[in-house]
Amino acid sequence: MQWFPQTKKVKLMKRENSMGNDMKNKNNITDSTIEVSAPAQEISPKKCMSVERSDPCTIVIVGATGDLTARKLVPALFNLYLNDGLPDSFCVVGCSRTKLSNQQFRGKMETALMATNLMDQTKWHSFAAALSYRSVDYGDLTSFISLAKFLKNLDQKHHTRGNKIFYLALPPSLYEPVAQMLGRSGLSEEKENGNGWSRLVIEKPFGRDFKTAVGLNQSIQRHFKEHQIFRIDHYLAKETVQNVLMFRFANAIFEPIWNRRYIDHVNILASETLGVEHRAGYYEQAGVIRDMFQNHMMQLLALTAMEAPSQFETGRVRDEKVKVFRSLRPFPVEKLNEYIVLGQYAQGKINGKPVPAYREESGISPDSLTPTFAKMKVFIDNWRWQGVPFFLSSGKRLAKKITEITIHFKEVPHSLFRQTLEERIDANRLTLGIYPDEKIALTFQTKNPGARVCLRSVPMDFSYHQNYTGPILDAYEKVLIDCMLGDQMLFWRQDSLEHCWSFLTPILNECEICDNQSEMLHFYKSGSWGPRNISRI
Amino acid sequence: MQWFPQTKKVKLMKRENSMGNDMKNKNNITDSTIEVSAPAQEISPKKCMSVERSDPCTIVIVGATGDLTARKLVPALFNLYLNDGLPDSFCVVGCSRTKLSNQQFRGKMETALMATNLMDQTKWHSFAAALSYRSVDYGDLTSFISLAKFLKNLDQKHHTRGNKIFYLALPPSLYEPVAQMLGRSGLSEEKENGNGWSRLVIEKPFGRDFKTAVGLNQSIQRHFKEHQIFRIDHYLAKETVQNVLMFRFANAIFEPIWNRRYIDHVNILASETLGVEHRAGYYEQAGVIRDMFQNHMMQLLALTAMEAPSQFETGRVRDEKVKVFRSLRPFPVEKLNEYIVLGQYAQGKINGKPVPAYREESGISPDSLTPTFAKMKVFIDNWRWQGVPFFLSSGKRLAKKITEITIHFKEVPHSLFRQTLEERIDANRLTLGIYPDEKIALTFQTKNPGARVCLRSVPMDFSYHQNYTGPILDAYEKVLIDCMLGDQMLFWRQDSLEHCWSFLTPILNECEICDNQSEMLHFYKSGSWGPRNISRI
Repeated sequence: MQWFPQTKKVKLMKRENSMGNDMKNKNNITDSTIEVSAPAQEISPKKCMSVERSDPCTIVIVGATGDLTARKLVPALFNLYLNDGLPDSFCVVGCSRTKLSNQQFRGKMETALMATNLMDQTKWHSFAAALSYRSVDYGDLTSFISLAKFLKNLDQKHHTRGNKIFYLALPPSLYEPVAQMLGRSGLSEEKENGNGWSRLVIEKPFGRDFKTAVGLNQSIQRHFKEHQIFRIDHYLAKETVQNVLMFRFANAIFEPIWNRRYIDHVNILASETLGVEHRAGYYEQAGVIRDMFQNHMMQLLALTAMEAPSQFETGRVRDEKVKVFRSLRPFPVEKLNEYIVLGQYAQGKINGKPVPAYREESGISPDSLTPTFAKMKVFIDNWRWQGVPFFLSSGKRLAKKITEITIHFKEVPHSLFRQTLEERIDANRLTLGIYPDEKIALTFQTKNPGARVCLRSVPMDFSYHQNYTGPILDAYEKVLIDCMLGDQMLFWRQDSLEHCWSFLTPILNECEICDNQSEMLHFYKSGSWGPRNISRI
Repeated sequence: MQWFPQTKKVKLMKRENSMGNDMKNKNNITDSTIEVSAPAQEISPKKCMSVERSDPCTIVIVGATGDLTARKLVPALFNLYLNDGLPDSFCVVGCSRTKLSNQQFRGKMETALMATNLMDQTKWHSFAAALSYRSVDYGDLTSFISLAKFLKNLDQKHHTRGNKIFYLALPPSLYEPVAQMLGRSGLSEEKENGNGWSRLVIEKPFGRDFKTAVGLNQSIQRHFKEHQIFRIDHYLAKETVQNVLMFRFANAIFEPIWNRRYIDHVNILASETLGVEHRAGYYEQAGVIRDMFQNHMMQLLALTAMEAPSQFETGRVRDEKVKVFRSLRPFPVEKLNEYIVLGQYAQGKINGKPVPAYREESGISPDSLTPTFAKMKVFIDNWRWQGVPFFLSSGKRLAKKITEITIHFKEVPHSLFRQTLEERIDANRLTLGIYPDEKIALTFQTKNPGARVCLRSVPMDFSYHQNYTGPILDAYEKVLIDCMLGDQMLFWRQDSLEHCWSFLTPILNECEICDNQSEMLHFYKSGSWGPRNISRI
């Protein structure tokens, strides 16, 4: 089970039965055969992009004693290692304020890995040899200068060619100071020949409104150029999300109907059954709009709505996304009620078990006005989407955990059956499911078997992992691989980020500082599908 | 298990969760819920046309001692009876030259039913009471006048209101004389009030070329009007074939791409593994073009290519079909080679068992030039289909029994992946499967799971009987029901029939009387997919 073959450049898989020559005749039928449809479950040989193996590099985790490192980052790195997904030469350096020896750090990581099903003692020993620890003081430049020296020695020893990734596993308040320190200690510098690159990985939140986001970007960009900054969106690293682009642009039959002429509306849903859990401090300040809309929901929207880029290439894809964000129709602040529903979960039941209200959760203010649910009606003012509402809904403590994009097509323009069927014909629906099933499902009308002329809506669906037996990349693994390869396609670019903030900031302000803040917030029963008045928009 | 409820007029099934009112708001979301996609296998309540129960009637099978009656017609009638598909008052009369008593006829039919899994002795007794037999001399008018009297008595006794169906289960040579006799004895007459209708059911072949077809129609129409004539095409009575229309016109998303702009070519395939079997006499004279193309293949073509009728109503549907036939581009006789491949099966193996060549079959001339295989490239000269080839292929003793229509869409107009994938992206394919699986399958491209960017062709399919547990109508049952209801939608109309003959007759002439007849015929191994040079067109 390997993601990458051993050779440096992976050549494409050759299709069996190459159609090379006989495709000159366009309507060809292979010699002495009739074109016959493949058996339903047969999947054709696949066509792959060639993938370069990452350059050797050092991965520096800043904030390595935190939860994220033990629970996600080191397991992801170790799993990449097991599957030959890391470069031939690499090392991993944990940094934090805490003083730890290499041995202590390795011990902690080993313990963390024991809790997963990944542990392989032999492999662990060779992996752990590339693992070291270095304590730093985030406010002290000499501490970073000393880190730089340490990394330089390590680089020479491990032949990682000066390539460095700084993964900030830190609270957002430390993004700016640490980025400054990295810059001032020379760690953000890159050599011109491409050997000796330096990359900065940061997680959301990227600011808490338009102004702070712009400030954060400016501050980081004092030392890191845009091509060095990898702003993670874990949704983007999910397989199915990437698949949306493939689905739209590798198939000729969907694009012609992917527009206002044939689409009635689009639903984008990301519902959770979980409550605020252990993130009360963060969530009270953030709320659902910052937590889910200013990132994941906006990315799903962009993937659904964007024009076809001229090429499947980072810059071109990100150009098309930002065009969507630029075309978002600003919310009319004077009638926000028609465009947004905000909610907060009250008591209720999830899977039959009683759960407390948001205001009763530990760490939450008993009169909190933080929304845990939002539904927005969004319009995109461009040629393709004029007049098509996109409904974006996300919330905690809802009936079911679901992430999906559903395209609701218009009804048939004329019903042949109007004299004979008393009722309307259901419109077609295409669902791009991300969770729980990574799937594509098309609902359409067929004749019901039997003597009478009956229509029924039936689903035709494809489960994404159907017939696939290879390894599946976890979002953190994908993020790390892309970062090592320097591929920013699945990361946020500054302009997109700022456009989204500028779209959402007015409503954040309106909701957070308006007089009728409490009137705007509607309570919903945990385990329901949100506030009762949700259908008003 | 009933096809029809007991009431005379069947009301529509009401949908659960009727959307009546809240659909005023077009982008509605049902009160307090978010639109969530239905679980993959859930099928919505169906919407049905109201169906009237057939009028009482007498079904007269002319040629009742033949194979068809015992093997197909009486079992179909009995199965309809078991499922409450016959009118409350009915009787069945067998007619033939042979002299038989009612008891003898019933005995023969009982024996035939014993061979099926339908037999139910109690039900048989009540059904058999409605079964009688009458011998007739096909050449003797007095014999028919006497039949008319017999039927009149029966009608009064069984209260069938003068309604009669004459099903000609006869050799084609008897269609004309028997239709004449029925007419001259007054049996084709109808009362104006619609009580007392008379219908004539005939099977293919309807003539053997354009001239004979026109002659046959004229002769029959001397006594029967077009609305009285039911020319059967058993393919049309198959569920999936009817479903093609529903699929195309009850779904808004396929029609926009169902044209020359998005479709590269269409394949219509009806392959058989059987040889000529016991039909040597007929088949030697007919050949594959008369046997399969001038009827089934043309109907599949029409269903695929026709415009949307204004209403799902017999006359309008048949109007649209004839427009397709009128638009068929005549074959260029001087370069027929580029449009047609003819073949005849040679020895080979079917399912591993050796089978003889066509010329070795019993009843076949050892130097027969009858084609058992044809592939045609057909163009439809209208706005929608200009330049799109329809490949029609049918033959005996081929590798597999398959009936399907496959829409081959064009490739993506521009590949985003051209720099990264070395090979072409497969085009989308939509298969409307009729045999062996009644299904709809769409082949499309998705991203292959894993780190590399790979595309794979995957199928999304819907099996027509998935989740359906009700009774399934056999083609003869469907034909009989529609004939009793007077619904001609699935039957051939004179104009369509004649247009198809006028399209195919020139090539029949060219193939049957040309000098190089034997050059045009290519032998193919039984169990293969046809002649080796099949790809030249």
